[in-house]
Amino acid sequence: MKRRSLLKQGMVGGATSAVAIACRPKKPLGTALKEQPVLNWRMTTSWPRFVPNFVSADTLCQRVSDMTSGRFTLTPYEGGDLVPPLELFDAVSDGRVECGFTTLYYFFKKRPALAFATSVPFGLTAQQQNAWLYSGGGIKTIQKILDPFGLVWFPAGNSTTQMGGWFRKPVNTVADLQGLKMRIPGLGGQVLSRLGVETVTLAAQDIVPALLDGSIDAVEYVGPLADRTLGLQKAAPYYYYPGWWEPGTSYCVVINKRQWEGLSPAYQAIFQTAAAEAALTVLASYNAQNGEFLERFRLGGTETRPFSQEILAACRKITFELYEEIAAEDETFNSVYRQWQDFRDRLYEWNQVSSLSYGQFAFKNV
Amino acid sequence: MKRRSLLKQGMVGGATSAVAIACRPKKPLGTALKEQPVLNWRMTTSWPRFVPNFVSADTLCQRVSDMTSGRFTLTPYEGGDLVPPLELFDAVSDGRVECGFTTLYYFFKKRPALAFATSVPFGLTAQQQNAWLYSGGGIKTIQKILDPFGLVWFPAGNSTTQMGGWFRKPVNTVADLQGLKMRIPGLGGQVLSRLGVETVTLAAQDIVPALLDGSIDAVEYVGPLADRTLGLQKAAPYYYYPGWWEPGTSYCVVINKRQWEGLSPAYQAIFQTAAAEAALTVLASYNAQNGEFLERFRLGGTETRPFSQEILAACRKITFELYEEIAAEDETFNSVYRQWQDFRDRLYEWNQVSSLSYGQFAFKNV
Repeated sequence: MKRRSLLKQGMVGGATSAVAIACRPKKPLGTALKEQPVLNWRMTTSWPRFVPNFVSADTLCQRVSDMTSGRFTLTPYEGGDLVPPLELFDAVSDGRVECGFTTLYYFFKKRPALAFATSVPFGLTAQQQNAWLYSGGGIKTIQKILDPFGLVWFPAGNSTTQMGGWFRKPVNTVADLQGLKMRIPGLGGQVLSRLGVETVTLAAQDIVPALLDGSIDAVEYVGPLADRTLGLQKAAPYYYYPGWWEPGTSYCVVINKRQWEGLSPAYQAIFQTAAAEAALTVLASYNAQNGEFLERFRLGGTETRPFSQEILAACRKITFELYEEIAAEDETFNSVYRQWQDFRDRLYEWNQVSSLSYGQFAFKNV
Repeated sequence: MKRRSLLKQGMVGGATSAVAIACRPKKPLGTALKEQPVLNWRMTTSWPRFVPNFVSADTLCQRVSDMTSGRFTLTPYEGGDLVPPLELFDAVSDGRVECGFTTLYYFFKKRPALAFATSVPFGLTAQQQNAWLYSGGGIKTIQKILDPFGLVWFPAGNSTTQMGGWFRKPVNTVADLQGLKMRIPGLGGQVLSRLGVETVTLAAQDIVPALLDGSIDAVEYVGPLADRTLGLQKAAPYYYYPGWWEPGTSYCVVINKRQWEGLSPAYQAIFQTAAAEAALTVLASYNAQNGEFLERFRLGGTETRPFSQEILAACRKITFELYEEIAAEDETFNSVYRQWQDFRDRLYEWNQVSSLSYGQFAFKNV
């Protein structure tokens, strides 16, 4: 189906759609649910289907269908099928598409504080990010930022602490960063550029050729599960950790607010619960599969290396300087950042005596 | 309502209940859902309401009601209201109660491998446990053990890495454990008793008096959020970490299989998704609130101390000897343990380069 006809259908597809009812398969529905409204929504995404977190979108859509006996269906579309990947925010905001699956730091320029919805350098791990979102006021804080755009949001996945990426040569000191050409977007890229890294923008499919022919020296992507889909392990030997710029990256759904308010309370609860389930199971899947593929990479010759304390300390110093600069210019960022800092400090203290202290002993020498 | 009358009602309450329909409030339901069957189930639990993970049960029950416009209601009961806390397994198995909220290591004697459904000494953190359950075959593995008992299960909460508990005096060496009287149940208690600890069984409400009058020297419970409900911070000054015997304790729902199979696929999906949401949000809540209450304890004079490497190493050695002994006697435990070990090893390797390596740098000196 062409993009234009999909968009046209969407214009009438938001509420109960005569077309959609006529198209339903003939097998009888469970009597239990036959008076629920029939809805067919489209979910635009910011990614191609091969990106592993697309599973979040599939999981969420399937579950909503399961819970409504197929009467409320959501169809996920690859980025570009309906609207370009980064036009998602505007397209859902203005009602061209009912909902979208994305990650809000892509829309940093709309409001810098949206970065906290996803992940920020030297921020929270996946488990800490969930604590902030679901129990530290995070979901409501971000919702207030989205209100003027007519958007409702729910977290719906997390790709856990990311890797520091692939390097053609070892990088030991801050001096080694000088002049390094690296594909790294976002705030992490801003921090590294202040240390002399020449940051490069490249689409996913162009990364491996650029690494192989030496036109870039390094690349950050996600972690073993996702990196493998691009074949990065074949393009550079050194795999650095940790990915301090994305310690726990949350994905989410955004929904057009008028469409959301048109849903029954039951459909709203179903949508929201399906998003929470996706948040849980996709994080589980990243952790389980990263373990599997990291082992394969190492067997295949990949050398994993930690960033030196010197590099980490320099990057952290610049990161917090950068936050202060943004906070000085942007009142919303400032207020979210201060609230987030308090929460983070307490959570770091707790995790020092719990998961961190446990992991330091238990994860080694079994 | 007395226990007997509740149980009687339960005998007819499993399927669509005439009594239940007659009792519904008069306000009109949303037309969307009015042909769904009306069900009123009871959920027995293993705890009093003040235990923080009771929130998992409340959350799950509320969500099922929300998603069905109040047509499928679940009512959680404190342990003892319907059946005694530890009779839950049998009561749900034989159909006296439709479902229960508990933690499966309480039923270690039924099948020792059920411990893996919850948490085992020197096992997985909450995030790792979720990876195993949802993406490492864990849910299916445990389901096979429950099949002969006519039970269906879903994880529904996690109290994260627990604390090592409260001690009246410092414990620095393995020799200091000799003769120590400690309230610690389960496998952790078995391990410590081999190091000379005299393990004691005490109900929650009896712990503080016993610590105060010196009839016990130490107690393990959960973590700051839960420990505060008993006032443990007022009964002993030293708060040890980490709680290596419960690095990520999962709670769960168990459902009578015939009742489960009588649900429509939509109600099944709704129940299951509500359980997943509870698993996510309750873990978030434990982490967020543990951070808050740990800070309060410290301000109030509590001294947090790590177990020494000597003690941890001795406990780990005995733990794995104990697993080998159980595996030699119990074929199911043996096969689950071997599969679990492979998964654990890969996940530990992954977490060494991700959340652990990140936390070691980031959680300190901000």
